[in-house]
Amino acid sequence: MLKIEHIGIAVKSLETSIPLFQKLLNSDCYKKETVESESVQTAFFQKGETKIELLEATNPDSTIAKFVDKKGEGMHHIAFEVSDIYAEMERLSREGFTLLQTEPKKGADNKLVCFLHPKGTNGVLVELCQEI
Amino acid sequence: MLKIEHIGIAVKSLETSIPLFQKLLNSDCYKKETVESESVQTAFFQKGETKIELLEATNPDSTIAKFVDKKGEGMHHIAFEVSDIYAEMERLSREGFTLLQTEPKKGADNKLVCFLHPKGTNGVLVELCQEI
Repeated sequence: MLKIEHIGIAVKSLETSIPLFQKLLNSDCYKKETVESESVQTAFFQKGETKIELLEATNPDSTIAKFVDKKGEGMHHIAFEVSDIYAEMERLSREGFTLLQTEPKKGADNKLVCFLHPKGTNGVLVELCQEI
Repeated sequence: MLKIEHIGIAVKSLETSIPLFQKLLNSDCYKKETVESESVQTAFFQKGETKIELLEATNPDSTIAKFVDKKGEGMHHIAFEVSDIYAEMERLSREGFTLLQTEPKKGADNKLVCFLHPKGTNGVLVELCQEI
């Protein structure tokens, strides 16, 4: 794991949260992207080498909608950049962590991604990601 | 705000979480520190320019104990490094954010810190910090 690539924050509405985070971070949102497969719209901010990714559900069945319903808005996941996602999945599996995918999938921001089950990581939803 | 200085993760036991995060991050814990004023013990890992700070309560009245009781283990706060904490507190207050301190206080890792109320930041507990 090389660095924290981004922190995902679940929000109810990008329309209200983008201006809020612009004021908070004193930075402009530089990109918006919809990830159809995850039923989310995302908005990105950069701080140093790490991005803040706001996530709004596009339908009530998306994992982000369920998260917000259950826990409210807030920090959803931490994504670590890796140089070889297949090798890192193999290493973490061998160390006893539970992977939520057997193969990397296509995520936002042109990345291959894989999530770890938060029950094995003290409640933290961890994403591995590698630029395609 | 210059970068994400650290991400705080509330855990029940550093004794079990330090080896877990060593395996997860493939890095050693490089420092432990007790912050008496906050009733927490902390353990630090470095990934790129950002630290992961594990937080264990040292008594049941600490904010970390209450957080774990209410929400379980997991991500607790995001800390942003600032170059002038007084100026940043003034800026954020003017922008309508609620500061949890009127003056910066001494935090872990030789920092002056100030927290923002999570009700004004989409449920995210935000810390400002500046190296002393």
